[in-house]
Amino acid sequence: MIKTDLTGILDFVGQEELGIDKGRRLLRELAGGKTGLSGTGWLGFPAAASPSLTASVRSAADKIAAESAVLVVIGIGGSYLGARAALDFIRSPYYNQLNKKTPDIYFVGNNLSGEYLEQVISLIGNRDFSINYISKSGSTMEPSVAFRVFKSLLTAKYGDRGARDRIYVTTDPEKGKLRQLCSREGYASFEIPPDIGGRYSVLTAVGLLPAAVAGIDIDAMLAGARDMLGSGEEEALRYACARQALYKRGKKIEILAAFEPYFRSMGEWWKQLFGESEGKDGLGIFPAHTEFTTDLHSLGQYIQSGERTLFETFVSVETTRARLRIPRDDALDDGLERLGGKEVRIVNEAAKMATKKAHIDGGVPVLEIGVPSASAYDFGALVQFFEVSCAVSALISGVNPFDQPGVEAYKKNMYDILELSGKTGVT
Amino acid sequence: MIKTDLTGILDFVGQEELGIDKGRRLLRELAGGKTGLSGTGWLGFPAAASPSLTASVRSAADKIAAESAVLVVIGIGGSYLGARAALDFIRSPYYNQLNKKTPDIYFVGNNLSGEYLEQVISLIGNRDFSINYISKSGSTMEPSVAFRVFKSLLTAKYGDRGARDRIYVTTDPEKGKLRQLCSREGYASFEIPPDIGGRYSVLTAVGLLPAAVAGIDIDAMLAGARDMLGSGEEEALRYACARQALYKRGKKIEILAAFEPYFRSMGEWWKQLFGESEGKDGLGIFPAHTEFTTDLHSLGQYIQSGERTLFETFVSVETTRARLRIPRDDALDDGLERLGGKEVRIVNEAAKMATKKAHIDGGVPVLEIGVPSASAYDFGALVQFFEVSCAVSALISGVNPFDQPGVEAYKKNMYDILELSGKTGVT
Repeated sequence: MIKTDLTGILDFVGQEELGIDKGRRLLRELAGGKTGLSGTGWLGFPAAASPSLTASVRSAADKIAAESAVLVVIGIGGSYLGARAALDFIRSPYYNQLNKKTPDIYFVGNNLSGEYLEQVISLIGNRDFSINYISKSGSTMEPSVAFRVFKSLLTAKYGDRGARDRIYVTTDPEKGKLRQLCSREGYASFEIPPDIGGRYSVLTAVGLLPAAVAGIDIDAMLAGARDMLGSGEEEALRYACARQALYKRGKKIEILAAFEPYFRSMGEWWKQLFGESEGKDGLGIFPAHTEFTTDLHSLGQYIQSGERTLFETFVSVETTRARLRIPRDDALDDGLERLGGKEVRIVNEAAKMATKKAHIDGGVPVLEIGVPSASAYDFGALVQFFEVSCAVSALISGVNPFDQPGVEAYKKNMYDILELSGKTGVT
Repeated sequence: MIKTDLTGILDFVGQEELGIDKGRRLLRELAGGKTGLSGTGWLGFPAAASPSLTASVRSAADKIAAESAVLVVIGIGGSYLGARAALDFIRSPYYNQLNKKTPDIYFVGNNLSGEYLEQVISLIGNRDFSINYISKSGSTMEPSVAFRVFKSLLTAKYGDRGARDRIYVTTDPEKGKLRQLCSREGYASFEIPPDIGGRYSVLTAVGLLPAAVAGIDIDAMLAGARDMLGSGEEEALRYACARQALYKRGKKIEILAAFEPYFRSMGEWWKQLFGESEGKDGLGIFPAHTEFTTDLHSLGQYIQSGERTLFETFVSVETTRARLRIPRDDALDDGLERLGGKEVRIVNEAAKMATKKAHIDGGVPVLEIGVPSASAYDFGALVQFFEVSCAVSALISGVNPFDQPGVEAYKKNMYDILELSGKTGVT
């Protein structure tokens, strides 16, 4: 089970400042549908998801894997970051370079770089590929540009009918230009439930289809999320209450830190979840992500001795898939002879304890979230953990956790500059 | 030439607050060796670097490329981030996956993850490889652990003598355990000049050797840095003065934003440079990095409407290597028909202008740094630009730009936990 350890902040905030009772009340209101807010469908989704949903996702994934060496996933923001996080966390950040039986996966439509698109095209080469186009509306610019590019390549390679058979759409069940296109063209399609916003959608078809193509056990992901509710909720709300108590004490920046490179994309997903949910009305903890120990030799100096306006949240994955031992090599004479024969994980664990102590001593409160493993099950649990804590945290600070009105500003300007008419797309 | 555009901050700070004269004076003191600080060797290095240095680096790179399909670069912090940035910026973030004549390059020794090490080992497979071990002291834990692992693999594969011939060391010319090891074993070696600290060292052999192995024109890199001095210095010091003026006005977080994925590692390098130089004595602008437009769908909401304590620095690369056009596809009926036939770069450029306006309107000052291209020459110029501006900026705020005493704290604790004696290594 996921655990929240608050001992590293108790020198900085008193137990009574945490406001656990208020957090509990807000969580009950949220779970009972009494906040009056729309966008809460993610909370019950893992429990309500039907076996037929995962069966149809697995079936599409099998077809993709049988027909294609590459899946091109088109999406931005919440239609991108969750699947990416799952792939890196559960499989590997080097997934595409591994020897494996499942297709390579490239994520596009999350930027407007021509160089990036050209490189992905050249990496696909003449291999067979399919597309998963993920967009609530179908009129967000970045994915729409990428869809034009890759649909045109598909059509050139397989003809109209062949291309149509290789396009999988994940979108709103009824509304939007993409649902209309889907109906006209007869693309295979999956639904983004209307009451689940992008950044809360990874456990819907949005994340499930790319994950299933990568050979990830999506039923386990959903089970992990389901089981987190109940007894696990208390841990999530303690995290929420702790971070808001620290924020009130002037800690304006939260650094999420993990000690494994496979957590990097999860950090990016987390930044969107919390930044977009809380960063409004002139409020919000600024979310940053570091990868230790590498960033101890980068931001480490700042964290140790810069402005004392930050706190950290360590994510500790308690088991590792690695068994590597450090070879003995006393000839190096570098003072590290005692490390010879030790498993690398022992040294990494020591680094975590050492860093926690150093940063607390330096005036930085350190929260710690313990995750049993980097399995599909624990990924699902961690996603649900963060979503629950994020919603409660935003509610404590008095903002709507489920809207993102500020994202429209640049889009509107872009429409003006490019002389486009019509409405900017909601991702 | 690299240019600094301050128009996007003039609604927030007055021209007279910039303190350009003070910045000029500090730069003159720095260039004249009158600050009394050690660690300023980087400033004159590109002009003083002898042709024989680059010739010997190129010659080692040629030998590595002739003998190996893979180069394993072992280093952390300043012994890692610069070469990584050069590779991504000048070649490609997908460098290892490209069809190319130069060796793959893997960076290790920058973390303590056993999983990461095991994956790199499996990616190398049974291909021939060489090692570039970069460390000032040779007793920093992360690279030392990785060196044990990969030296042992080399020895198993090629024997003692064969391994010795595939190890290239970059370290202090005289001091430290690694220099001693080098002399005993007869490894090929390069020097890190003693008056150049890690985060200012990318244009020494630290960055030059991996760059040369990747086929990058290292003479052009040095030429770019050399030419930045003189007329370019004024642009660098305007950036330094502007960020300190914003800091005085309560802007505590700087977000470096670029619109190309190949800039991501450069952002990581920049975070170390500024964070480690300025984050001390309870002071310092917190350095964050975003990649647009992808992060407009992540941190975009916070930037637009969260706490008004941040400013942005856009890095605009003014030319692109891509020529991709967006295919026409009016059947999509998504309101974006007018994009058909346009180059992707036009839309990316529009996104940049749109974002700048939106963020300024939202209360975020936006600086802009214009870089002519993503060439080796401009990479060198941009490195020198940031190093000069960082040093001046730290001097304005009254801290030593060249030390990093806070990095020792976690290392000391780690030595205690692992019961190691002796001194913690300086990277």
